[in-house]
This record gives sequence, C-alpha cells and structure tokens, in this order.
Amino acid sequence: MSRDICICQEFLTEAHRAKIRSAADQAGLVPHFFTPDQFEEAAACLQHCEILYAHSPDLLRSAPASLKWYCCSYAGVDPYCKDPSVFANPDCMLTNSNGYGVTIAEHVVMVTLMLLRRMPEYEAVVRDRGWSNQLPIRSIRDNAFTLLGTGNIGVNVAQRLRGMGAAKITGLSRSGQAVPGFDEVYPISRLEEFLPSVKVLVMSLPGTPETIHILNRDRIALLPPDAYIINVGRGTAIEQEPLIEALNSGRLAGAALDVMDPEPLPPNHPLWNARNLILTPHVSGNMTLGYTCDVNVEMFCADLLRYGRCEPLKNLVDRTRGY
Amino acid sequence: MSRDICICQEFLTEAHRAKIRSAADQAGLVPHFFTPDQFEEAAACLQHCEILYAHSPDLLRSAPASLKWYCCSYAGVDPYCKDPSVFANPDCMLTNSNGYGVTIAEHVVMVTLMLLRRMPEYEAVVRDRGWSNQLPIRSIRDNAFTLLGTGNIGVNVAQRLRGMGAAKITGLSRSGQAVPGFDEVYPISRLEEFLPSVKVLVMSLPGTPETIHILNRDRIALLPPDAYIINVGRGTAIEQEPLIEALNSGRLAGAALDVMDPEPLPPNHPLWNARNLILTPHVSGNMTLGYTCDVNVEMFCADLLRYGRCEPLKNLVDRTRGY
Repeated sequence: MSRDICICQEFLTEAHRAKIRSAADQAGLVPHFFTPDQFEEAAACLQHCEILYAHSPDLLRSAPASLKWYCCSYAGVDPYCKDPSVFANPDCMLTNSNGYGVTIAEHVVMVTLMLLRRMPEYEAVVRDRGWSNQLPIRSIRDNAFTLLGTGNIGVNVAQRLRGMGAAKITGLSRSGQAVPGFDEVYPISRLEEFLPSVKVLVMSLPGTPETIHILNRDRIALLPPDAYIINVGRGTAIEQEPLIEALNSGRLAGAALDVMDPEPLPPNHPLWNARNLILTPHVSGNMTLGYTCDVNVEMFCADLLRYGRCEPLKNLVDRTRGY
Repeated sequence: MSRDICICQEFLTEAHRAKIRSAADQAGLVPHFFTPDQFEEAAACLQHCEILYAHSPDLLRSAPASLKWYCCSYAGVDPYCKDPSVFANPDCMLTNSNGYGVTIAEHVVMVTLMLLRRMPEYEAVVRDRGWSNQLPIRSIRDNAFTLLGTGNIGVNVAQRLRGMGAAKITGLSRSGQAVPGFDEVYPISRLEEFLPSVKVLVMSLPGTPETIHILNRDRIALLPPDAYIINVGRGTAIEQEPLIEALNSGRLAGAALDVMDPEPLPPNHPLWNARNLILTPHVSGNMTLGYTCDVNVEMFCADLLRYGRCEPLKNLVDRTRGY
C-alpha cells in the first residue's frame, strides 16, 4: 500500500508538480494533485493520506486522524491554532510558508510612499479633475521606521527601506534579538516606550493571543500626530475604533491596512470612510508571483525530504504559540 | 556701488539664507531676499542686480539687459530655452538645479509598484466597498526596466530598482555613454529596437526639440501589451492621443503620468478617463522636502563661488540645446 500526499493548490505549474513528485519519490511517498475547485475529489483522496499541502481549514477538517502533517501554503496559520478542532489528529504537525516576504515588502514600500507623498489627497484632487499645489510631503530617505515584527516580512521591508536611504530602522519582536538590517531590535514588551517617537510604524505580526489589539486605544493615543501606521499582519492587531477616530480627527497622519477585522469588511463599516486611509483587500501576500510560488514549493519539498528522513520539519509551527 | 543678487524663493529657511549670504560675501556680492508674493519688490530690486535666483519667467522678463546669470531653481528650463525673448540679455547665463533626483525616484518607485500591483483596479474595488480576489500582479524583483534618460533622476531610479532586486536595467540617453547602476546604456537613436521588449518604461527626458513626441504613435504601437509607461520628464515627450487609445483598448497594461500636455490638464481632456492610468498633477519633484531644498541651495552657492572666481558655472545650461 502506498503512502500518499494530498495536494490541493491553484498555483502549481508543471515544473512545480515535477519538483514535488521528485521530492515525494525520494521520501517514499506518492503525491496526488487537486485544485480547490476539486474539493470533493481531494477530500476523498485525503482519507488515505498522511500529508496534506493546501490552505483550506475545510479540507483539513475532512482529514482522518491518521493525517500526520498539514503544510499550509500561507504564512498566517491562526485559523488552525485558534481552533484545534480542525485537526482530527491532535498531534498532527503544522507547517507554514513564509515565502511572502518579498511581495509583502514591495506592498509596504508602495503604501509607505503613497502615505508620505500624500497620494490619497492627490487622488481625490485628480478624481475631481482638479489641479493642486504641491503639498508638503515626506520621504523614505532620512526617515525613521519602527517595524513590529522582524520575521521574513520585516527583514525584506528593512532591506528595501535601507536601500532607499532610511536613516533609522528599529525592530520590535517577541525576543528582541538582533536581526541583520535593523539598527536595533527591542522586545515588543517595550512597545510603549517607542510609540511617542514613531514616524512610520510597520506591523507584520502573526495572529496570536499576544498580538490581539497590541495597538489598542491607549497605545494609539501615544503616537504623535505625524505618525503613519501600516498593517500587513493581522487585522486583529489594531483596535480599529480608536484608529478610525484618530484618523478622522487628524490625530494621526494616515494609515494603510491590507488586513482588517473582519474580512471581508462589511459594506457599512466605518473603516471605508476613514480619512487618509489606504485600504487594500488583503492582497499584499499575493500567490500570483512566480518567485513567491517557487519559494512555497521549495519550502514544502525541503520539509518533505526531511519528513522522509524522519528529521524535524524546518517550518514547524508551535500550535499553542501560534507561529 | 554694491554688486547685487536678487533671490525670489518660497522655500528658503534661515539656514539657507545664511549659507547664501556667506557664499555671496565670498564672491563679493550682496543678496536680497524675496518670496514670490513680493513680485513687485523683487522686480524693482532686480533692476540693479547681476544675478537672479528664482523660478519665474515673468520675473526674468522684467530683468535688465545687465543681468549676467539666471539660476533657475527647477530642473526643467524648457520655458527659458523655447522663448529666448525672456532674456533681455541674449548672453545671460542660465543654470538649473537637478537636485530632484531622489524625490522623483521615490515617486517612480511608488507608481511602478502601483501599476505592477494593480492599485488602480484595487482602488476602484475599494471605492465601491467591495472585496476582490487576488489579481495577478508583477514585481520589481526579477523584472526588467528601460529608462529613457540617465541623468540625476535616472540614476536614482536605477539605484532603487536595483536595491529591490530588478533583474535588468537598460538606459537610453543622447550619448549612450555607460552610467554606473545601469546594466547597459545605448543611444536613444536606437529606441525603436528596445520598445518591443519593454516591461516598464521610465521616461525622465528634458523638454527639448529632440524629445517632443519621442514616444509617438508608431513607437507606442511597438510596445508589447504588458508594457507599463511612466513619465516624470515632460508631457510633450509622449503623443497623448495614441497613448490614450492604447490604454483604453488594453493594448498597453497601464501608465503613470506626472507630466502631461497641457498643464493643468483641461477638465474635458480624455486623459482623465483613460484606463489603468495614474495621473498626478506634476508633483514628483516636490520642493517641500528638506534635502531637495538643501541640494538646491548648495548647487546655487557652489556656482556662486565659481562666479565670484570667474570660473565656468557647473550647472550651466546650453540655451540652444535646452539642457
């Protein structure tokens, strides 16, 4: 009887499939490929599989207790950690894929420049077919950045800001350990010390119990009026009501949110109307870029080889900690 | 009798004025400071000045034939070259200020990412309070860029694209001379060879007789359908009617124009409605950034010292050639 892998992804090219077949072969397993529109077929196959490579809590829920490893092709695995009942096997290993750093970093550079260069205001002028005097703008060059989260996204953001002449890049992370590309990194427990001097705050935190409303009303109040906030992690990290109040009253210069709570945002939600806010519908970590998909497949295949050798998986998530 | 300089600028800080006073003193001249709202006073003072540092064709027109040097604080001096009658003294020296490279490069990076990441489409979705599936996007990383113009702007753009992982940066310039940061530079006379393989075309050309409609209908037709065009030089460099047709018919992927012809764009102009077009009202070279103003003053002061020593001015413009 073969040992099987169920793979349910929309982005795989023939080259990706060949790569997976080769790794599976070395690991002594057989891959079965499905796309998300083949849910029923994938779920049926999954019944005799020990590995699932997908990004679907629903598909995972239909897996048997014999599933040993779920490789999630997304970075954010909070849906799987918040609700352990999605795993029939309580000891099932969970890995994630953090190959989004580059594309999310490009998104962060884009919205940082849009905020600093006041694009929301210019776009409003242009929509009215108007012309405008030059508004006072700010620059990445010589500016200071505070990055909440120093993982794959933070590192790629820091690298790009540095390349554009950023004067100072401060990181805040759980451990506070030094990370190349950052001028300094502190434990996130000291967040409140840093908020009063924030120029641009870039948040790329995972969705864990500790990060929920980490930027709450009291902390938003500590930010200076010329601060900009960018969030590409999880919408739950920001208390949205005081953020909206601060934006609308001009107590903050602006914000760019690619993530919010809930998603999709309901049509009557006050975030839609907030002042100097750039909203994008959770698209910064797009899986349509070749290099992002390549990294995703490479990470899975590398762990698949480790799995075949009974070695620890590199991208293993602590299901209690949430990342 | 003193030798005088008329200075009419809105952006000078006290530190800038002190720096100019010091340079003028060394050069044996006396500066007189005005802001643009003091036009009459500036024009009266100008009658006994040999130098004018400003950015106003009207003020220059009121200068006497004894004016020896006009330092324009903008990079684009085409208004002064197209119409020599603005100079009462036909031999008056003209210098310009190319210290905009950094801020214009930040604008180029911003609109490049907005086009590649399909922000015009996402912004339309968000304006309708909608949600969207992830659209196929492209990246600066691994992408190829063709830069028309390898001057201060082109160099700063190339540096930033390289820092973000661009695979290939090709420059096209009048001379075709190699420039650091470019993989290759060719004479702009070979433009048509390069158009069929353009991914992103960044235009930062001065407004000269040679650059008018350099991207004309026939050349726009040579571009592939996935090409993006960015123009931060002069609006006259692009034949706008075929550009609009190409955008609206989907024969081009998109464009970002900070310059157009005419400016301001009339309310009924078809550019306002063109598809996948990001318009900004000529604001990429903003004079509100400290470092841009600092460079501007430094360039003027350095040439002022040369003037005092009767040496050639470094930023001298060939009034016939136009840059």
